[in-house]
Amino acid sequence: MAANLDGRIKLVAGCFSSKPKNSKASGADLYLDTSRVYSSYEEMARKEAALPASERIDFVSIVTRNQTHFAVAKTFLEAGINVICEKPLAFSMVEARALRRVVNNSGKVFALTHNYTGYPMVKEAKEMVRTGQLGRILKIVVEYPQGYAITALGDKGESGISNWRMDPSVAGVSNCMGDIGTHAENLARYITGLEIEEMCAELSTFIPDRPLDDDGNMLVRYKGGARGILYASQISNGEENNLNIRIYGTKCSIEWFQEHPNELVVKEVNQPRIIKRRGNSYLSTVAQKYSRLPFGHQEAFIEAFANVYLAAADAIEDEVSGRKLKKNYDFPTVEDGVIGMAFIATAVKSSKSKTKWTKMLG
Amino acid sequence: MAANLDGRIKLVAGCFSSKPKNSKASGADLYLDTSRVYSSYEEMARKEAALPASERIDFVSIVTRNQTHFAVAKTFLEAGINVICEKPLAFSMVEARALRRVVNNSGKVFALTHNYTGYPMVKEAKEMVRTGQLGRILKIVVEYPQGYAITALGDKGESGISNWRMDPSVAGVSNCMGDIGTHAENLARYITGLEIEEMCAELSTFIPDRPLDDDGNMLVRYKGGARGILYASQISNGEENNLNIRIYGTKCSIEWFQEHPNELVVKEVNQPRIIKRRGNSYLSTVAQKYSRLPFGHQEAFIEAFANVYLAAADAIEDEVSGRKLKKNYDFPTVEDGVIGMAFIATAVKSSKSKTKWTKMLG
Amino acid sequence: MAANLDGRIKLVAGCFSSKPKNSKASGADLYLDTSRVYSSYEEMARKEAALPASERIDFVSIVTRNQTHFAVAKTFLEAGINVICEKPLAFSMVEARALRRVVNNSGKVFALTHNYTGYPMVKEAKEMVRTGQLGRILKIVVEYPQGYAITALGDKGESGISNWRMDPSVAGVSNCMGDIGTHAENLARYITGLEIEEMCAELSTFIPDRPLDDDGNMLVRYKGGARGILYASQISNGEENNLNIRIYGTKCSIEWFQEHPNELVVKEVNQPRIIKRRGNSYLSTVAQKYSRLPFGHQEAFIEAFANVYLAAADAIEDEVSGRKLKKNYDFPTVEDGVIGMAFIATAVKSSKSKTKWTKMLG
Amino acid sequence: MAANLDGRIKLVAGCFSSKPKNSKASGADLYLDTSRVYSSYEEMARKEAALPASERIDFVSIVTRNQTHFAVAKTFLEAGINVICEKPLAFSMVEARALRRVVNNSGKVFALTHNYTGYPMVKEAKEMVRTGQLGRILKIVVEYPQGYAITALGDKGESGISNWRMDPSVAGVSNCMGDIGTHAENLARYITGLEIEEMCAELSTFIPDRPLDDDGNMLVRYKGGARGILYASQISNGEENNLNIRIYGTKCSIEWFQEHPNELVVKEVNQPRIIKRRGNSYLSTVAQKYSRLPFGHQEAFIEAFANVYLAAADAIEDEVSGRKLKKNYDFPTVEDGVIGMAFIATAVKSSKSKTKWTKMLG
Repeated sequence: MAANLDGRIKLVAGCFSSKPKNSKASGADLYLDTSRVYSSYEEMARKEAALPASERIDFVSIVTRNQTHFAVAKTFLEAGINVICEKPLAFSMVEARALRRVVNNSGKVFALTHNYTGYPMVKEAKEMVRTGQLGRILKIVVEYPQGYAITALGDKGESGISNWRMDPSVAGVSNCMGDIGTHAENLARYITGLEIEEMCAELSTFIPDRPLDDDGNMLVRYKGGARGILYASQISNGEENNLNIRIYGTKCSIEWFQEHPNELVVKEVNQPRIIKRRGNSYLSTVAQKYSRLPFGHQEAFIEAFANVYLAAADAIEDEVSGRKLKKNYDFPTVEDGVIGMAFIATAVKSSKSKTKWTKMLG
Repeated sequence: MAANLDGRIKLVAGCFSSKPKNSKASGADLYLDTSRVYSSYEEMARKEAALPASERIDFVSIVTRNQTHFAVAKTFLEAGINVICEKPLAFSMVEARALRRVVNNSGKVFALTHNYTGYPMVKEAKEMVRTGQLGRILKIVVEYPQGYAITALGDKGESGISNWRMDPSVAGVSNCMGDIGTHAENLARYITGLEIEEMCAELSTFIPDRPLDDDGNMLVRYKGGARGILYASQISNGEENNLNIRIYGTKCSIEWFQEHPNELVVKEVNQPRIIKRRGNSYLSTVAQKYSRLPFGHQEAFIEAFANVYLAAADAIEDEVSGRKLKKNYDFPTVEDGVIGMAFIATAVKSSKSKTKWTKMLG
Repeated sequence: MAANLDGRIKLVAGCFSSKPKNSKASGADLYLDTSRVYSSYEEMARKEAALPASERIDFVSIVTRNQTHFAVAKTFLEAGINVICEKPLAFSMVEARALRRVVNNSGKVFALTHNYTGYPMVKEAKEMVRTGQLGRILKIVVEYPQGYAITALGDKGESGISNWRMDPSVAGVSNCMGDIGTHAENLARYITGLEIEEMCAELSTFIPDRPLDDDGNMLVRYKGGARGILYASQISNGEENNLNIRIYGTKCSIEWFQEHPNELVVKEVNQPRIIKRRGNSYLSTVAQKYSRLPFGHQEAFIEAFANVYLAAADAIEDEVSGRKLKKNYDFPTVEDGVIGMAFIATAVKSSKSKTKWTKMLG
Repeated sequence: MAANLDGRIKLVAGCFSSKPKNSKASGADLYLDTSRVYSSYEEMARKEAALPASERIDFVSIVTRNQTHFAVAKTFLEAGINVICEKPLAFSMVEARALRRVVNNSGKVFALTHNYTGYPMVKEAKEMVRTGQLGRILKIVVEYPQGYAITALGDKGESGISNWRMDPSVAGVSNCMGDIGTHAENLARYITGLEIEEMCAELSTFIPDRPLDDDGNMLVRYKGGARGILYASQISNGEENNLNIRIYGTKCSIEWFQEHPNELVVKEVNQPRIIKRRGNSYLSTVAQKYSRLPFGHQEAFIEAFANVYLAAADAIEDEVSGRKLKKNYDFPTVEDGVIGMAFIATAVKSSKSKTKWTKMLG
């Protein structure tokens, strides 16, 4: 829906299952030309790459499970096809670093769908920091509580959540911190530009038989001196998708809640509180660029996701048209993905350590 | 105002300054009988104790600075006079433990004004936990951000806050964690009954010349397995007095904000969210007992503070009337004060430690 | 509690029941000197007036039912004693106008406890209008929904509310519009200074056997051209005491909710929304004067009520000290009371009329 | 975007301007087959109708200005083509009634895009009423304040809004009540099923040179005894698109705000307040059917609009497939459009009348 929203991207080919028959059936449901519904991603990369430039796909969107991202992305990039990939970037740090080399060698566009950076008011927040409106940042509190994975603990005899995100052979070394903690890290870094220097983490597994974490808390020291808290949880009973961030600066502070995404609260001592709202002419150019509707007509999750596609589409158009790629498009890159993987690995390492502070892995 | 609110307590004597002249002047402003305005607390304790039981004060309220609490409280208790004392209990752990002995030996009432436990909806929260409505508690997030102490960092040439809370010879080993972090710890413990087993704390001083902390974050492990985050801050620019707590249980979770004290939010997966509001007949007996006004007619800070006085007054009436004191009145005790002092000392110790977890001092 | 809050007012005499025995018993409970607990209000007025000025009461507070206000107030005023009286002013327009004459002839202080005007943020709103910050006022929406009187309609076989406010011989010509609609009118007029020119009202009685209205809606035309809506209801199921007002001006608009009294929202097209919060230094002098606590430490209903007493106490002190009374104290006067009674009478008249607009009675 | 969102509808033909050249250019921008970009709507209807059933458009979407709706809709319907039309239905009551006859005679699908009925939580509200959860409805308060049209009144020398909605030859007899008041009426009727019996309205024009209303308030009597208030405004400075509704029933009440569309508040006396949130399994089947994302991942305006298209698409598929049309699809019909036009005409009539109540036109 997000890719489709703005009418700029059209689905023309795909491989929809690791089982050829299922892939064909799904392609038919989507009214695709049967010749472009493939039995494997390798076939798809090979045959699409063989089509004339005017006919072949401009990019592929990878929405498979974590452990396959690396191989699929590498295959398409090496076939000369741009890639938009679900997060996390890869299954491990080793893969992540390898994929970074593949991307850099390919000269192709690689975008990672850290969708929460697509919200106009998140972009406004980033712009406020960039232009110095917050002054020096002292403290960052970023929380990502969900509660859907509590059910196995309940009294109702439910069998609990047992999805692939809990399977180490699919998800990697972390469930909760890997799935949603990375969003929190990415959001904080997107807005402030601050990288984690070291952390002190505790990952927990509250539901007994789970092989991976379902909750994690950490103290964070950012490069440059800011301090903070970051946490992610899937057992915070009754929370839905309550990602939120508060950034405290010497000049003012800002606060954003994903569940009320059209507002950005600005706080400053001895000043009235200010609420900026999406769609208004007083917002920064970038916040306005990524808005579609007038003020008061709310935008939400799909539009934010679509904004990642829109920004990637800018780059893909440049690449496909043979123009030199710019330094900065407004979408998460392979570098963001590597940092995300390092964040996960560091959190797991820190959680096992008896030493207080663990340096962020590179 | 809080003591005065319910018409149950009447100011009849006092010592209002360490300078006799100032004390006399203040007493006159308060229309007190001059014979009962004293030049020193020692004189007050001695002379009041010498009055016939029907005439002397029923209790003394100690609102002096931290470093004097021990000596003043000890003096009155040993003179046989009940005490209501501002938090923190004392200047150090040594004093705190000594004062506990004094209280226990005296047989007198000693109440500590951790006022945030006085809110009816906090009492409702406690009652929900006590009766098992939350199930097992998994996680506690308690935050106490203020921003008033940011000013020295601003661009406006202000001289900043330099009050006695920042003076180690008055405030003790901590400013921010001691002043407001203890409220956070006390609130979490009051509601859940859970004690901290160990913590991993980082106290920071963001304003350069301050001798004590103005911000502190910690990971917490509670006895019994719950995990959590606790933080206190005075440099969270634009925050006013935003104490809040979220308690996540296996059955449901609750959320309370001091700045919206008349509401308690209850969250549970797959259930509509519930908001309980002060003054309603569906609340627990204790929440109703400590309400004064009908629903929709908001109560706030003064009433909560007054509720600590009301609960202490119950005990004081028992004591003065010669009745045996009950086990449980609904006010913070010397034991709460000792735990609060241990919390401060442990936080300071943990902050200096390179080891991750520091056991709570006893 | 409100009168008692600030320690400026002390209860020294009273008549607490129309039955002498009950009055004596209540007085004893309040520790009053028995010689100053009276069997009737007439006795109280006569005997207090006969005391030396330094001993007699400075004012009487009338908290009896509607139909007695006139006689009691007249008696004390004519005895030379200042009066603070519960709203509504009187039982009828005839009484109201007569009482105005009595007040004016007496030269005494007469204050009416329209308590909602006591909130600091309401005073801030008034000050914003007064200093032209809203520009010209175009529209006023003021709502007062309560739901407590719905119960008789429920499925639970409850017997419903049958209090004296529903008895025409006690309450007068209106229940809901008289009891709470007048608060709405008073609040709008207090903030804006605008008087109603004409109205189009519909009063309803949703619970069958009630002799008076339990709900009322009206279109309002204010003098000077502003338009508006005013409504009051006691059958709005689940509403508690949700008085709120929105005032739309050419320069900006303001919004205030009684259930969140410490905030005032300011809205302006093409500008970020602003929230002013009680206790801050950026507020007007008057809003700060009527605050007791620092920002973030919420004040509420009792403090607002106490502010009416504080303002009246300023006037009473002037009167008792023989100083000339000022033109403007910040409390509701007998003139406000007469307008309130006219509002009720006009609403009842308009509700019965087939003509659209009914002029406000004088 | 809304039609495009779900991938169920594809744009294949169109007439995009009354100027043939502009229409061709727009069609090219949309990558349409040039043979299906038309110079006039008449040509489009004629030529599309002449195509084989498998090739021609399944429906036309009319998004022209008010005064053209009738002629365009009539032309397509009589050519045998289904229609989705922007509100209001037509320019006048006469046209509206005529169009109703055309629709009924055609046997084709006609949907009106009253988009606010597309929100899942509005559908939940409707379902709660339908299944008796509110009991008998006593009162409805529906408000639609906007503020964008205030600008001409400001101090900033702006020229103000002068769009076609203010031109009587385009917009018809009303601007504000016609443009957004009808949404308020439609929303209240969609949820409750209650029709207006009579009203007492005042339409105002606050900006001097405007030929039509920019604000309107009304008292409403619904058939069956419910009472209410309805207002619409474009001069409520600082309001964005604050459509909201409160429906008070004997059993409970509900409250919904368009600017927080994922929540529905349920209030009941003596019960905790309840907040239902989109995407949860406890919601009604219909509320779940029209949701796309998990709870906590907000949906908003575009999705609601898309839901009107989805419901219409159900009917259009039935019609195109030769199936008998069902009685009830979940989209606004020509009947809703006629009632909307009657609402506008009645509001204008009532506003000019000196009599209090004006019967709703038929």
